[in-house]
Amino acid sequence: MEILLIIVGIAVILAVAYAVFNFFSVKKMEEGTERMSEIAGAIRVGANAFIRYELKIVAIIGAVIAVLLAAFISWQAACAFIIGAVMSASAGWVGMKIATYANVRVTNRARETKDLGKTLKVAFKGGSVMGLCVAGFALLGIIIVYLIFGLACGQIEDIANGNVQTYWTGLDASFTMTVSGYALGCSIIALFNRVGGGIYTKAADMGADLVGKTEAHIPEDDPRNPATIADNVGDNVGDVAGLGSDLLESYVGAILSGVILACELFLHNAGFSSEFLTKLMLFPILLAGGGLLACLVGIGYVLIKPKLSSNVHMELNIATWISAALAVVAGFLLSFFIFKDEDAFYEAVGWKAANFSPWLASVFGIVAGIVIGLISEYYTSYDYKPTKRIANASKEGAALNITQGLSNGMISCMLPVAVLAIAIFGSYMVGGMYGVACAAVGMLSFVAATVSVDTYGPISDNAGGIAEMSGLDEDVREITDKLDSVGNTTAAIGKGFAIGSAALAALSLMTSYLYAFTETDIMLNIIDPLTLCGALCGAALPFLFSGMLINAVAKAARKMVDEVRRQFNEIPGILEGEAKPDYKTCIEISSQGSIKEMRFPCILAICFTVLSGFIFGAEFVGGILIGATITAIMLALFTGNAGGAWDNAKKYIESGGLKGLGKGSPAHDASVVGDTVGDPLKDTVGPSLDILIKIMSTLSLVLVVVFSQYNLFSLLGL
Amino acid sequence: MEILLIIVGIAVILAVAYAVFNFFSVKKMEEGTERMSEIAGAIRVGANAFIRYELKIVAIIGAVIAVLLAAFISWQAACAFIIGAVMSASAGWVGMKIATYANVRVTNRARETKDLGKTLKVAFKGGSVMGLCVAGFALLGIIIVYLIFGLACGQIEDIANGNVQTYWTGLDASFTMTVSGYALGCSIIALFNRVGGGIYTKAADMGADLVGKTEAHIPEDDPRNPATIADNVGDNVGDVAGLGSDLLESYVGAILSGVILACELFLHNAGFSSEFLTKLMLFPILLAGGGLLACLVGIGYVLIKPKLSSNVHMELNIATWISAALAVVAGFLLSFFIFKDEDAFYEAVGWKAANFSPWLASVFGIVAGIVIGLISEYYTSYDYKPTKRIANASKEGAALNITQGLSNGMISCMLPVAVLAIAIFGSYMVGGMYGVACAAVGMLSFVAATVSVDTYGPISDNAGGIAEMSGLDEDVREITDKLDSVGNTTAAIGKGFAIGSAALAALSLMTSYLYAFTETDIMLNIIDPLTLCGALCGAALPFLFSGMLINAVAKAARKMVDEVRRQFNEIPGILEGEAKPDYKTCIEISSQGSIKEMRFPCILAICFTVLSGFIFGAEFVGGILIGATITAIMLALFTGNAGGAWDNAKKYIESGGLKGLGKGSPAHDASVVGDTVGDPLKDTVGPSLDILIKIMSTLSLVLVVVFSQYNLFSLLGL
Repeated sequence: MEILLIIVGIAVILAVAYAVFNFFSVKKMEEGTERMSEIAGAIRVGANAFIRYELKIVAIIGAVIAVLLAAFISWQAACAFIIGAVMSASAGWVGMKIATYANVRVTNRARETKDLGKTLKVAFKGGSVMGLCVAGFALLGIIIVYLIFGLACGQIEDIANGNVQTYWTGLDASFTMTVSGYALGCSIIALFNRVGGGIYTKAADMGADLVGKTEAHIPEDDPRNPATIADNVGDNVGDVAGLGSDLLESYVGAILSGVILACELFLHNAGFSSEFLTKLMLFPILLAGGGLLACLVGIGYVLIKPKLSSNVHMELNIATWISAALAVVAGFLLSFFIFKDEDAFYEAVGWKAANFSPWLASVFGIVAGIVIGLISEYYTSYDYKPTKRIANASKEGAALNITQGLSNGMISCMLPVAVLAIAIFGSYMVGGMYGVACAAVGMLSFVAATVSVDTYGPISDNAGGIAEMSGLDEDVREITDKLDSVGNTTAAIGKGFAIGSAALAALSLMTSYLYAFTETDIMLNIIDPLTLCGALCGAALPFLFSGMLINAVAKAARKMVDEVRRQFNEIPGILEGEAKPDYKTCIEISSQGSIKEMRFPCILAICFTVLSGFIFGAEFVGGILIGATITAIMLALFTGNAGGAWDNAKKYIESGGLKGLGKGSPAHDASVVGDTVGDPLKDTVGPSLDILIKIMSTLSLVLVVVFSQYNLFSLLGL
Repeated sequence: MEILLIIVGIAVILAVAYAVFNFFSVKKMEEGTERMSEIAGAIRVGANAFIRYELKIVAIIGAVIAVLLAAFISWQAACAFIIGAVMSASAGWVGMKIATYANVRVTNRARETKDLGKTLKVAFKGGSVMGLCVAGFALLGIIIVYLIFGLACGQIEDIANGNVQTYWTGLDASFTMTVSGYALGCSIIALFNRVGGGIYTKAADMGADLVGKTEAHIPEDDPRNPATIADNVGDNVGDVAGLGSDLLESYVGAILSGVILACELFLHNAGFSSEFLTKLMLFPILLAGGGLLACLVGIGYVLIKPKLSSNVHMELNIATWISAALAVVAGFLLSFFIFKDEDAFYEAVGWKAANFSPWLASVFGIVAGIVIGLISEYYTSYDYKPTKRIANASKEGAALNITQGLSNGMISCMLPVAVLAIAIFGSYMVGGMYGVACAAVGMLSFVAATVSVDTYGPISDNAGGIAEMSGLDEDVREITDKLDSVGNTTAAIGKGFAIGSAALAALSLMTSYLYAFTETDIMLNIIDPLTLCGALCGAALPFLFSGMLINAVAKAARKMVDEVRRQFNEIPGILEGEAKPDYKTCIEISSQGSIKEMRFPCILAICFTVLSGFIFGAEFVGGILIGATITAIMLALFTGNAGGAWDNAKKYIESGGLKGLGKGSPAHDASVVGDTVGDPLKDTVGPSLDILIKIMSTLSLVLVVVFSQYNLFSLLGL
């Protein structure tokens, strides 16, 4: 069986090689004029400085966690944790690096060729580096952990022999713990990248808009605005590095929840053969490997096709569809052949469709992901009613714009959740709880393609900024704007994937959590008072976390506002374009502000479950997990869709959707208020909530063996 | 034992008699000048017309439900349903009636005496009619149901004999069903009063503000604004009738969930004596009766005290504290003496503190209610940091005011929920699930006092409006403004009580629901896929419901805006005060708009659980209930506190809190946007969510015996 890992190994090698090739092929392109080089250089320096500083902090926190893991869980878990953190950080770092090279080259390509298709190719090539690295590094780490700890250290054999290794605390410290450690490593990086990056990008964005657009009435990305470089840096650290680590974490979480469930199923079902255990453990990894191979084809389509059409959205969709379709085929073959002769065990894992079960379940995930994405598009694109309604309400002023946006966002929660529920129920029906994990892996199996598409968006956004700041011709900006606007739609769809997969991964992890401390049937009685209280407090946590994040952005943005105002007042000739603004100070303010403000929300995310576990025990934490997961899904959908719709309602007015009311009209002013309110909601709060629920489940899973035995409440006999 | 019901009977008679006395003593006061009479008359006519129209619709829906109940559950449940609906409708109607008499008399008393204390007395006398009727009518109905169906029809004896009566469908149709029917009757009225009234009041308010304040720059309640009478009508139908039926429903829900739990505990514990059953059933009713007697003293304090001090807030607090303290004493005596000789059964009901258990549990509820109220005050009053921060953020414009308010509202969820969790856990620890029901009854035991205080607010608000519209002296308005501002604070505290008690009542009802279809231990396994999917969809429901409500208000408000604009344009001399605006059309628009817009949310609230039950069965509905309850609590806290804080941030700026930035400054304009956004959130969405979760649990409880046996999923064998 393990021989099949070679397929995954090949997929990883191909993906990384392709990423390296694309990286250097982008890097060796021309940067364009001196002014363009200069601006791109400033963005690059700013982004590097922030990531380096952020990583330093994460390294310290990571080291502390690694030591604690080694002391209380196992040295294997600690090592796996470090590997996970390194993989996640590397993917984010490489992706950001290439994004800061690609942006200016996209501008230059547009400037030289004035061809949409050729420009798209550069932007997508840049994005593909991130997409391939996310999937490649994640799988690479998993293979390493599997080979070293699972096979070489014999942890899988221990499980197969029912000889679950114990550590000095006398606790279960088996392969499941090692694997959870790996997932936790990815989570920690994702948390900091997402939260830190999210605060950075929106503080700079809001700061630039609040003074530049609203007070000084200069356009976006105008070089006279001192915060404009910081704004562009923000796109790279938030939308590129943040997104990359986020989806890498979901991907890892989904795959490993399948692996962990496999172990737990084995330990709870006496009759399983050890070979079946291996198959169950390997299938999610293989499915992911197959998906990665599929993505190589899909990505290759855009990069190799000689002449891309000018319908950018369609070309990107084709790439995604090719990847998804091939992933489905790969999943079918894998499921069919791997589980072909194992009928004896189907009943025990709850498989209703024999060896097709894992495949069918993964298809549920894939379809659900796409449908949720389409629903997000309906609620946020201005081609449809909801967003048009917000634009119309802007005619009555900012208050009704906000009201309509809130209402739209709230209403938009039901459909995606219903789809998610159908996917959960369907995948459970065909494949038991293992099926739900497969659905999560399925949804993310073509993550390399979706991340490539998602990353191309901020690269194009940056390219437009550089065109504006370098004073290039209007037609250059037109090309980058077209790329950017497609990027906005793909971003909305990507957000649907992110929350959908986070929900499925969190639920599978939660099931593994319950397996870890319940003896018989897995069960979480929500009407048990301790669990119920946990669910109530857990449900309030995403609200608290979101509120803190919004506060953090607002605080950092206010500092930026003060600085931009100061520069406008104190540097003479700045608004006439005669004096150069001090970009560097703004970058520093954003950096320091986000580093400072991200501490509390991150500490809350980490400590809330840990402390609750050691005080109230495992049932309470179970309640917290379910309560937090449920409200986080709702809030993520609400903030994502409300924010996206506000943004596009503004764009609709700008594009002349309301007759006679364009830029500068009172309706447009009202829509700018909505857009500004939506910014931190959709780009900081929503994505961070995805991470919150995953890091909570992963942390609890790692610690459950400790706090289910040692907690204050059980010590007090309550 | 039943002889003790006489105490409750006496309390009811005293309360109703006192209410009648206060009603007529207010009515016979002078109305003041002709202009005042005229305005008050217009408000009264508008309010009556709306309530009459609304009740007609409810009567039709109620008749349909009653027939269905009679056909599928039992004729007793149908009768009890009608009694409940009549009691709830009467309380709302009487309260609104007196409010429309009291408002102008408060203005007149202020005009004649210029004395704050004497004016307070009139306003509070008006409010007390509502408070006393809410508690009196609720208990009256319960006594009737208990005597007729429980005793005369022998339904309690049937339970005591374990001979649970069955109906032609072959289903359990015992006393629990009858009692649930009564609660459902109260719920239906509360739903329509709250939702309809909430839409009415905010459509009129927003409509009046959006044109009057923002466009025409005329002050609030200015007689030149055509929507101003509609706005004042709205206070009466929304804040008086709506609030009254809402709290009556919570009160009934809390008491009856105790009664139902008592029956279920008896049926699930073979060894119970029938006398202990009677005691368990009667205790919540007696506790409520004791509380009502306590309130008579508390209310009497304000009304009888010869000279009230000018510290209005303190005087009202004293009344509440007297009521609460005496209710605690009454609870102690009742618990101690009733359960004195029943040690044999304590273990079976989970009582850890012997016969003190129910009392201790009720104290948990009372304390939690007060603490949650105080927390609401912290997050919404401008004496504290959070609201000041919103006011400060207004300096940077509307967007940051909104952002800060959202963040404040989100953060404010955690503390009240933690208090609620402690109350649930504590009351469970001392008294089992029955203890949680007692906590709910405890929290509401002095409801007569809190409703009196809550109702005095809108009466004073109206009085101020009448003073303004009649062109009375500035010092009259000053007195009513003082009363009104205290009313705002008490309203925030009242909202804390409303959501806290709704949560506890919903949870106890949910436990009863689980008892009704689980054979052994009550349990709801949230990780079971059907329950989990139910929880996900249930969690999205309050978001959908809230979104629809906001939409409804915005739609109705937009119609009002158009009408007010039309009148300003078409009626010459209206803004100079030379021509009279057409108030009637505005009232009609508000009436028709709210009647039309309330249909969908109400139908959703009723049909969602019912349809789900008949399709997916009882476990799925269990999931819906828990999911919806959890997110509804969060959203109610979020909307209530965010809205309250926005309102008060505006008041803070108006009162000169930001140096140099008063009325008319850009910061004030920004804060008006926040206030307008917050209006439908705090006065329509939040209160309606309280009802949503209660009506869902009540409905499910009534129907569970049917759909646990007949549902599509079990028919399909899934």
